[in-house]
Amino acid sequence: MDMIACIEKKKQGFPLSKEEIFAIIKSYTEGDLPEYQMSAFLMAVWFRGMNHDEIYHLTMAMMHSGETMDLSSLGLTIDKHSTGGIGDKLTLIVAPLWAASGLTVAKMSGRGLGFTGGTIDKMESVTGCDVALTPETFLSLAKENHIVVTGQSKNLVPADKKIYALRDVTATVDSIPLIASSIMSKKLATSADVLILDVKFGRGSFMETKKDAKILAQTMIEIGEKYGRKVAALLSPMEFPLGFAVGNALEVKEAYDILGGNGSADLMKHSLFLTILGLYASGLCANVDDALNVAKRHIADGSGQKKLCEMFRCQGGQFTGNDLCSALDLPHNGVELIAEQDGYITDLNALTVGTVAMNLGAGRKTLNDTIDHSAGVLLKKNVGDYVCRGEVLASLYGKHIADDCQEQLEGAFTFGTKDEIPADDSGTVLLDSKELELKGIIHKLLTDS
Amino acid sequence: MDMIACIEKKKQGFPLSKEEIFAIIKSYTEGDLPEYQMSAFLMAVWFRGMNHDEIYHLTMAMMHSGETMDLSSLGLTIDKHSTGGIGDKLTLIVAPLWAASGLTVAKMSGRGLGFTGGTIDKMESVTGCDVALTPETFLSLAKENHIVVTGQSKNLVPADKKIYALRDVTATVDSIPLIASSIMSKKLATSADVLILDVKFGRGSFMETKKDAKILAQTMIEIGEKYGRKVAALLSPMEFPLGFAVGNALEVKEAYDILGGNGSADLMKHSLFLTILGLYASGLCANVDDALNVAKRHIADGSGQKKLCEMFRCQGGQFTGNDLCSALDLPHNGVELIAEQDGYITDLNALTVGTVAMNLGAGRKTLNDTIDHSAGVLLKKNVGDYVCRGEVLASLYGKHIADDCQEQLEGAFTFGTKDEIPADDSGTVLLDSKELELKGIIHKLLTDS
Repeated sequence: MDMIACIEKKKQGFPLSKEEIFAIIKSYTEGDLPEYQMSAFLMAVWFRGMNHDEIYHLTMAMMHSGETMDLSSLGLTIDKHSTGGIGDKLTLIVAPLWAASGLTVAKMSGRGLGFTGGTIDKMESVTGCDVALTPETFLSLAKENHIVVTGQSKNLVPADKKIYALRDVTATVDSIPLIASSIMSKKLATSADVLILDVKFGRGSFMETKKDAKILAQTMIEIGEKYGRKVAALLSPMEFPLGFAVGNALEVKEAYDILGGNGSADLMKHSLFLTILGLYASGLCANVDDALNVAKRHIADGSGQKKLCEMFRCQGGQFTGNDLCSALDLPHNGVELIAEQDGYITDLNALTVGTVAMNLGAGRKTLNDTIDHSAGVLLKKNVGDYVCRGEVLASLYGKHIADDCQEQLEGAFTFGTKDEIPADDSGTVLLDSKELELKGIIHKLLTDS
Repeated sequence: MDMIACIEKKKQGFPLSKEEIFAIIKSYTEGDLPEYQMSAFLMAVWFRGMNHDEIYHLTMAMMHSGETMDLSSLGLTIDKHSTGGIGDKLTLIVAPLWAASGLTVAKMSGRGLGFTGGTIDKMESVTGCDVALTPETFLSLAKENHIVVTGQSKNLVPADKKIYALRDVTATVDSIPLIASSIMSKKLATSADVLILDVKFGRGSFMETKKDAKILAQTMIEIGEKYGRKVAALLSPMEFPLGFAVGNALEVKEAYDILGGNGSADLMKHSLFLTILGLYASGLCANVDDALNVAKRHIADGSGQKKLCEMFRCQGGQFTGNDLCSALDLPHNGVELIAEQDGYITDLNALTVGTVAMNLGAGRKTLNDTIDHSAGVLLKKNVGDYVCRGEVLASLYGKHIADDCQEQLEGAFTFGTKDEIPADDSGTVLLDSKELELKGIIHKLLTDS
């Protein structure tokens, strides 16, 4: 493989062959291809893009760079992937609801970096929870409980680890072919039958517009379907924090509460979007109305909450029955942020909230930082709420709360009139090359209950 | 300096500040900035370009990365730069003519790589010639003879050495801002009062079209004038080899012959273009007609040839008087390429001729190769000539002449009718923001003489 010729080809806008793409990924993963050539190539990809075949070959080349996992002995398996968000604890809500319905969730998940949290970090806030399961334990728990979540195996898609680390320091992260192949190579390496994608758009996500999010989602769906998997996507706005809790133990508690039917209406709605999309796409439910009823039942009868606790207990969580919260290092004595004016909250900058939470100790600034699982921000109000001067907007928790944290968090809130509350742009779903709107159905549920 | 932010800025098409550009060059030259970030940045520059200020700052940052040389004690100094060509021995013709006219040429020159030769390599084909002069010897010879040519000091523009090496392996060579700043940083570091640029276009040069060559030339003129230097450019087609000789000793001999008034009309014309451009741009001659007469006189009276010999002798060349050729390792017993058909030569691929010469030993395939100074190709015919079947087209010289060399060289020739001989597109000059055509004047000289 002549790498200079490959860079030149991509630079001039010509597509690369399957052989060229496989050779580049193999050579880079094995350490033969210098980083400076790979980064020049990635920048050329950023500018020129890749066609459908190139993206598929890139995904396959990356997937085959390491070990893959065979879940075929587990019955109908389902997985989800989120492109990241502030306060996104959806895996801990949706996976138990799927498992309660008979689907199997055998999921490998990542850690967080910067202001976005990772499911694995959140799980570690449960005392005793093991997120470095052996493949044997992983498979046997999946078979037994229909739900297990562990950290990514070190040998899974090594090409992605190397390429992602390079993209991160060369300003080549925000490229649809590179994002799609990175996500899909990992997802197809653990290869569940059904894959539900939660693709974010807006402030604080890679895709700034819903249009871009749709292109990314369609790209990923196409890769998955070409590989013989069922893939569906939810397009989600990522303007505001998801739910009230931002911080590891706080978010586990919030997931537990939502599964008990309590908490943020917005988080409940979003959880239901994903849950019913999975139940429907997997064929377990004949239509979305049925799927909604199944999800609703598993919240009402506590079986979702029970599945969450079962998962944690079976992975070593030190509590009995459903008393998950006793194993959580939940914070006390927060500093309150008080509203200084009356009005509707018309904006709440998710990025700022995420950054404040990270500064409080809830996230890592660099890969070597350790996390304070009890730190974070607990919002009392979110966008659309009316607030009176003197009311508590949020509580800040952390071992060392720097003076400017409160001020910074205050700056995340914008107040205005009812008219200025932004319209809800959630609930768009891509499934079987069709675009569906789930908002109406969910609205019905929320108003019925 | 936040390099990721700088790459992102350039990637999105925003200009970088002077401070950012200086910081990038300093950090990269000192080895702090990783190559993978620099190469991603260079690729972003390839796609987005740079504005006038950015290019000037880049040139200055590179120039100040190492030592500079002060020629102000030498009177009116002149330098030239060619963007490279097959058979380009113009420095060895033009510099003596300038020196004979009273201008001082104190020039640092480069070595060749691949199919393009370097003046320094050509000079080394003269037995004893020293091209690694100390700064003291360099300046004293310049003062004494008005002509001296040495290899580039190791401390001259170290940033360019590092950046060029990286561009070469990351497909980022062909970028006007990067080419212009690379050339001008070196030229301004040795800072002659007048700089004549020979900018090639067409097959076998970086700029494919005359339009692109003009943009590159204008970019370099602007940098030089902003720095307070007089800069003029000749736009030259680079479709065919320049003159008959391609190979080091062969080219020195051809330069010597041209200065004696003998040889290829095309090479003579091109030499005069550059010579009179220098004499006029420097202010030494009031108009191009005067300049032409001065150049013509210095060929006719042998003072140009005398200057060339003086330069070589003073730099250690082992010969006496004007007997330069006795110190040249000229080849014998070449293999002849015979025409197999009648017709006009309508095309002669310079790249192919250069590659054949390189394969014969005249050039380096890699930096560590050694050169056989006597090897090369001596054309007997060039584009526009009529050839009869059985005539010699060229001679090939080398220690080992591979079987396919002759065949490859034969493939460089295209035969056709008189109508198919391409039009002469040479002689366009950029000077003082004006575009002049020198062709008519030179034509007059060649037909008069």
